[in-house]
Amino acid sequence: MEISPSILSADFGNLLSDIKKAEKEKPEFLHIDVMDGHFVPNITIGPLVLKALKGKTDIPFDVHLMIEDPDKYIKEFAEAGAKNITVHQEACLHLDRTLQFIKSMGIMASVALNPATPLETLKYVLPSVDMVLIMTVNPGFGGQVFIDEMYEKIRELAYIRKSRGLNFKIEVDGGINVENINDVVFAGADVIVAGSSIFGSGDPRENIKKLRGAVKR
Amino acid sequence: MEISPSILSADFGNLLSDIKKAEKEKPEFLHIDVMDGHFVPNITIGPLVLKALKGKTDIPFDVHLMIEDPDKYIKEFAEAGAKNITVHQEACLHLDRTLQFIKSMGIMASVALNPATPLETLKYVLPSVDMVLIMTVNPGFGGQVFIDEMYEKIRELAYIRKSRGLNFKIEVDGGINVENINDVVFAGADVIVAGSSIFGSGDPRENIKKLRGAVKR
Amino acid sequence: MEISPSILSADFGNLLSDIKKAEKEKPEFLHIDVMDGHFVPNITIGPLVLKALKGKTDIPFDVHLMIEDPDKYIKEFAEAGAKNITVHQEACLHLDRTLQFIKSMGIMASVALNPATPLETLKYVLPSVDMVLIMTVNPGFGGQVFIDEMYEKIRELAYIRKSRGLNFKIEVDGGINVENINDVVFAGADVIVAGSSIFGSGDPRENIKKLRGAVKR
Amino acid sequence: MEISPSILSADFGNLLSDIKKAEKEKPEFLHIDVMDGHFVPNITIGPLVLKALKGKTDIPFDVHLMIEDPDKYIKEFAEAGAKNITVHQEACLHLDRTLQFIKSMGIMASVALNPATPLETLKYVLPSVDMVLIMTVNPGFGGQVFIDEMYEKIRELAYIRKSRGLNFKIEVDGGINVENINDVVFAGADVIVAGSSIFGSGDPRENIKKLRGAVKR
Amino acid sequence: MEISPSILSADFGNLLSDIKKAEKEKPEFLHIDVMDGHFVPNITIGPLVLKALKGKTDIPFDVHLMIEDPDKYIKEFAEAGAKNITVHQEACLHLDRTLQFIKSMGIMASVALNPATPLETLKYVLPSVDMVLIMTVNPGFGGQVFIDEMYEKIRELAYIRKSRGLNFKIEVDGGINVENINDVVFAGADVIVAGSSIFGSGDPRENIKKLRGAVKR
Amino acid sequence: MEISPSILSADFGNLLSDIKKAEKEKPEFLHIDVMDGHFVPNITIGPLVLKALKGKTDIPFDVHLMIEDPDKYIKEFAEAGAKNITVHQEACLHLDRTLQFIKSMGIMASVALNPATPLETLKYVLPSVDMVLIMTVNPGFGGQVFIDEMYEKIRELAYIRKSRGLNFKIEVDGGINVENINDVVFAGADVIVAGSSIFGSGDPRENIKKLRGAVKR
Repeated sequence: MEISPSILSADFGNLLSDIKKAEKEKPEFLHIDVMDGHFVPNITIGPLVLKALKGKTDIPFDVHLMIEDPDKYIKEFAEAGAKNITVHQEACLHLDRTLQFIKSMGIMASVALNPATPLETLKYVLPSVDMVLIMTVNPGFGGQVFIDEMYEKIRELAYIRKSRGLNFKIEVDGGINVENINDVVFAGADVIVAGSSIFGSGDPRENIKKLRGAVKR
Repeated sequence: MEISPSILSADFGNLLSDIKKAEKEKPEFLHIDVMDGHFVPNITIGPLVLKALKGKTDIPFDVHLMIEDPDKYIKEFAEAGAKNITVHQEACLHLDRTLQFIKSMGIMASVALNPATPLETLKYVLPSVDMVLIMTVNPGFGGQVFIDEMYEKIRELAYIRKSRGLNFKIEVDGGINVENINDVVFAGADVIVAGSSIFGSGDPRENIKKLRGAVKR
Repeated sequence: MEISPSILSADFGNLLSDIKKAEKEKPEFLHIDVMDGHFVPNITIGPLVLKALKGKTDIPFDVHLMIEDPDKYIKEFAEAGAKNITVHQEACLHLDRTLQFIKSMGIMASVALNPATPLETLKYVLPSVDMVLIMTVNPGFGGQVFIDEMYEKIRELAYIRKSRGLNFKIEVDGGINVENINDVVFAGADVIVAGSSIFGSGDPRENIKKLRGAVKR
Repeated sequence: MEISPSILSADFGNLLSDIKKAEKEKPEFLHIDVMDGHFVPNITIGPLVLKALKGKTDIPFDVHLMIEDPDKYIKEFAEAGAKNITVHQEACLHLDRTLQFIKSMGIMASVALNPATPLETLKYVLPSVDMVLIMTVNPGFGGQVFIDEMYEKIRELAYIRKSRGLNFKIEVDGGINVENINDVVFAGADVIVAGSSIFGSGDPRENIKKLRGAVKR
Repeated sequence: MEISPSILSADFGNLLSDIKKAEKEKPEFLHIDVMDGHFVPNITIGPLVLKALKGKTDIPFDVHLMIEDPDKYIKEFAEAGAKNITVHQEACLHLDRTLQFIKSMGIMASVALNPATPLETLKYVLPSVDMVLIMTVNPGFGGQVFIDEMYEKIRELAYIRKSRGLNFKIEVDGGINVENINDVVFAGADVIVAGSSIFGSGDPRENIKKLRGAVKR
Repeated sequence: MEISPSILSADFGNLLSDIKKAEKEKPEFLHIDVMDGHFVPNITIGPLVLKALKGKTDIPFDVHLMIEDPDKYIKEFAEAGAKNITVHQEACLHLDRTLQFIKSMGIMASVALNPATPLETLKYVLPSVDMVLIMTVNPGFGGQVFIDEMYEKIRELAYIRKSRGLNFKIEVDGGINVENINDVVFAGADVIVAGSSIFGSGDPRENIKKLRGAVKR
């Protein structure tokens, strides 16, 4: 299991400081939640914040674009240091083109699905993606509760991956904590996004340890 | 003259630290540049960043909404601690309603104009606004050059204010530095927004001092 | 002075009955407030309601389109019996074309302005319009308070009309009652829209009489 | 079988009177067709009409939102007396969130599908909905002809419901009359929306009786 | 196999001349690529170009609308001489209505799918369509490379057609040349769109011959 | 007076041939009418057509973008050979930025106004533009009738230019023919766009001669 702490729950007044605390535990990614107030009903941060972090931390940036028309900003986020860019299926009229465009930047290209969106929508792009991000809450805000129907969705995706002989990673985002992380991983998740469970209270390093420790296998 | 340091040029990895440096010089406002990637071609920050700063600094928040359909976010920014909210004339179909809505939050209500937008567009709302923000660069990015035609626009607005017996403040944003701040103030500006001149290089506190010192009167 | 009772405040369960009461006092128009939930933050009624009233009342329909892209619905409203169609300047990219299109239906073509919109926006279409509708509240809801700055706007429009030798009517809509109708007419209004003052409480016929009686000249 | 008479075909000049006639036959719902001229090419009615009916009839309101961005109006329709609110899958970027939001109002939450939209789009929300509305004509207008391919869609949905052990109701809307209602119910429909068959001609009460009588079981 | 030479790669300075060269080989269709700069990131040509060709060539026009809200332009293209109009599933909120509307013009009605869009989205309209156009590149530009995953998509569609006993044609567009045309036809394609392979270099007539000759059966 | 023949009325089947005929009379510009079906209700041509003409004629391209969000296509049209690019004030949220962007391509930057749009909207950009295009018909179609109110608009613009000491050219487009060209030039126009008067019937070269001959001074 890999972990991608979401800065959505970090202290934006002292962002680097929070990140540095998490960094000690060497998480595989740092999840950057970009929201434009149109695709989701919240505005969070953009490329400037990423640029401010670039070169200041070793954690690779896992950029999650919860924005309309992501093609307009992909180049800028890639140049700002993204190691992975995830776009939403629901935001991409030409999803195959968008994914190819991200890849042309020399980085990982991934796709996310809202809770209600079926896996069928990804059928023809699965061979091209590096990760599929299953949203387990409706995107827009931190601190929401995991939607239980999503366990089955993760299992189905893991099954599709296996049956088609593909090897993208399954990332899961929303409401994951020490109570349910084992079930999520058991269902098939490879990369766990966690926001309030890591930056909500207590020490981020310890919180990552606890999350990792809660996975039994 | 009052000053409103723009966090657009601050270090987003250590935002509070930069703000604390500026705070020592007691600027009248802290300019919060909110961009949604739709009204302007850049995404910056949203309510979460404001919430992170709330209660951590004494500088009143001067929130500049460079977003479409600002009514959707006014309540949230007001609750996040805004002392002033500025909306763009170009983004408001029902500008009078939007300004009344901001006022109903018990805070200052202001309106901004892009460089090309004429002052006539504000004719019927000038009696209701607390500030008019004259953009002296095209909004979206820090570090641009002041558009010289805007001196005349500031002078005209100052003239209109006087001739109609009104008392809103004139705020000016874009490309202001120690070289031109005196001319801007002389043209009629009351509140000066400055980003790279304050947070770009050197000590924010000293930079505010220099800007203030450059105004001769 | 002519009067245009607004059905926005009538009883939609017994619409024809309310209209019949008003009809006895022979108002010059019946104001039909069409809202689409996009141009204004409310949805009211559409062509079907107009069709239901067609041929059931003698009052000519004064259709006020508070909708985006009104060209799509002009033909339908004309066929549903409109004697006048008013579009909003703020909703028309090609305002001259839209007005010519309404005229081609053989009916009156008028244009409305939100409270904040300047009269200059109508400069080149004033010779073509039958009425200009000055909104004295922000459109979207009944029962709002008249915005006092609008007296001056009405006076200016009356002055422009006179100085250019034009003869469109000036219609005024929003917050008009027996207290202020005389001032509105004195400022230059020819057609008064009234909703809650007519259908709010009491007998519509009597309420029209009172409004007419409140105009001293 | 339950019945939901659609006011789309009622007399909007005497709406309550038409409803009262239908009420005598105690239909389970009153179908309120809300159209915004954007999601569908027609504008019908909004919250004001619902408010006018509230408290005047015992039939529970079954509100069908054929509008873009329905979240903006859900609260208002709930407060205006809706017992059920149905949103379109095609209009909801965050369908799961929208359905949860309706439920949080303490009322039934349902989802509708246009004729061309596949059932797969509902896979993850079926456990959360109270009804699924299968459109058997393209929404926008009354008086259209039932699309025969929809029988199979209703059957498939009934099969899915059974095989997954769920218990939402299946509602069907469009072109239903005494000729085909038995087939529609036999295919799996629980709630029948009927407009012109009830309010088109003749007595609404009798028409409901005829529709009910045409179902053989 | 039928062939539909795409004018996207023809010489727009001498369009008729290029078409006349192709005409000698009697292709079954002439593929007209209409792009609006919104549905796809390119603007190509509109009804005027079709009108200029009408009556000047015997090749039937196969109009491919890569535009938002195609309903607005269907009538005009039909009148300009289209024998077939293809709309994109991704651009049609009411796909069934749009297809019926095309049919009501007395011409062929077809639907196109972007590479990432699943076949399930067409389930309920397949009985109504004359052709399904499988895009084998992301639409917007000529000269792109065929996406190999699309072979499987064509095969699946051919299988669905057979198993449901339907008889629409399968049209394929994007990156087809003498190297791969045999595989595409073998997978199930009936109508081949070719642009640069026909008008890119050499004589269009000869190029069509070569494409036809490359199909072994 | 300079002349800019509009290809909107040329024969799109033999475009270069028509242009070559006009070229003999050495018009100063070739007017390229680009429409996207969104800013105006018509789709015409895009960059591909311009590329097809590049290097085949000596007439400089005068590209008139009747499209939404023109910034997306400016670079492409500049590379396709435009000598001038004109954008619409009504289509540009950041008009000053857009004009600077065109200039940065090393070509002329101009702005157009719809018939109803007031000159005040250009106040702050007039010092930056190379031409102002006064539309004398509502853009979208060839063959319309000149709107007489526009004479005064041209005169006012000529007056503003003189009184401010500026030197942009005034271009006029719509309904100009041998009957009215002298009045248009007399009113202040420098560059005359003509479509049907040049390419409508007869020889383009002769038609240009006639237009030039009709100007008496």
